[in-house]
This record gives sequence, structure tokens and C-alpha cells, in this order.
Amino acid sequence: MTDCIFCKIVDSKIPSSKVYEDKDFLAFLDIMPVNKGHVLVIPKKHYVNLFDIPEEVLADLIKIVKKVAGAVKSGVNADGINLMQSNGVPAGQEVMHIHFHIMPRFKEDELKHWPRKKYVDSEMDEYKDLIKKFLE
Amino acid sequence: MTDCIFCKIVDSKIPSSKVYEDKDFLAFLDIMPVNKGHVLVIPKKHYVNLFDIPEEVLADLIKIVKKVAGAVKSGVNADGINLMQSNGVPAGQEVMHIHFHIMPRFKEDELKHWPRKKYVDSEMDEYKDLIKKFLE
Repeated sequence: MTDCIFCKIVDSKIPSSKVYEDKDFLAFLDIMPVNKGHVLVIPKKHYVNLFDIPEEVLADLIKIVKKVAGAVKSGVNADGINLMQSNGVPAGQEVMHIHFHIMPRFKEDELKHWPRKKYVDSEMDEYKDLIKKFLE
Repeated sequence: MTDCIFCKIVDSKIPSSKVYEDKDFLAFLDIMPVNKGHVLVIPKKHYVNLFDIPEEVLADLIKIVKKVAGAVKSGVNADGINLMQSNGVPAGQEVMHIHFHIMPRFKEDELKHWPRKKYVDSEMDEYKDLIKKFLE
């Protein structure tokens, strides 16, 4: 995609700090890290999101994510790792080319996970049924 | 693992709101959802985290995550989806059995993504080299 910033990174039209590259995938530092060492992993081919990428490409992508996550953990001596993957602007997706965030975490880094809600009465069964019917 | 809450869910020793199940994988509602319809996907076999799970099992797991994420999006009419996967207590992992969070997102749900840091001077090159050396 000519107007996609990640496609331009793949084509080296925009510089990036690459930590891993093969024929089909690329991993590079996020320029605005949650913690330093935050890496993005992408397929070189343009897919918008989780729903657009073929499952076999996704399966190969997650293997690269696992490999790179180990390198991030070792490289920056992280205490933990979060993977995050966002689909759609309301989910915080900023670049419409699928990417997995690998975020190193440190004890007392003060990043707070989202607050949790509660189901009341029969709501949990209702939500279960709403979702399950698309999987039957 | 006899003391693992997710293994007990797999064995139906603890009830759960299952939305998908096959021979190897299980998806059920998180009882404390970020938004209602928040689902967890797990392998039935006990693996601690991203570093413990074999890559071929992980590849199969992410295909199920993709399938279930589509059902969550359709089922609750979400505007977006976040995937999250946490490794280690400092990353917010609460159950030591690998799981992917599928979190439906809605316009104006007011869930804020983590603040970003900045690299200064040659730091970005330094972090790139720290990580890259584990991938060569």
C-alpha cells in the first residue's frame, strides 16, 4: 500500500531500527515505546488486521513474535512481557497494517492494566450465547 | 496441573461460560471483563506462558484466537478488538497457564492505552543492538 507507513518501512523508504528480518516478516523498535525495547512485529505483506490476515500467515507471524519476544526479554533484561494487538481505531490501532506489540515490563514500572467490570444476574449467560452462536 | 484454575476449568471441576471448545483448545468468558464479552482462549494442555508453549501449539492457538475474536466482534457488535497476552507477574499475568485475552472495544469506552516514552540521543541504536544480538 503506497500510503502505509509500515509498507514504507518494509521497503526501506522510511528508516527503522530493525531487530529481525526474514523473507516474510519484520520486527523493529516502536519509536514511542511503552518501555524502552518495545518492538513491533509485522508481516511484510499488507494486511489490515486480525480479520484480514490469512490464518496460515498469522500462524507464521506468531512464531516470529515468540522468537522476538524472547530476544526482547533477554536483551533488556525484562521482568515480564506483554503482547498486544489492536484492531480498529476504537481499539487504539494507529497504523492500518497488522502488528503485534512486544512490550517489556519491569517490576514497579507502574503501567496499570484496565479496570474490570462485573456481570450481574443472567448477563454472563446472555453474553456467552451472543458469542457462541457465531462459533456453532 | 492440579493447582491450576484453568486446568480445573478444562476438566470441568470449576464451571465456566464456554463459547468454544475443541480437542485441544478452550475459550470462555473472563469473569472480570474489561468490557462485557471479554473472552480468554487457552490450550487445554498446561503451558505457563509464551516461552513455555511449543511454537506449533502456539500457531494453532492463534488460529483459534482469530476465529473466536471474530465471534466476539460480531456477537457483541464491538467497534474494535484488542488481543493481550501477559507473561510473568510483573506483566500482569494472574493465572500461570498461557491465555490470550480477546477484549471487545467500543467507541468512547474510555479505556486508555499506556503512555509512551521517548528515546534520546543514541538510545534507540543501543536498544536495537541489545535485542538484535539475541536474534543473530
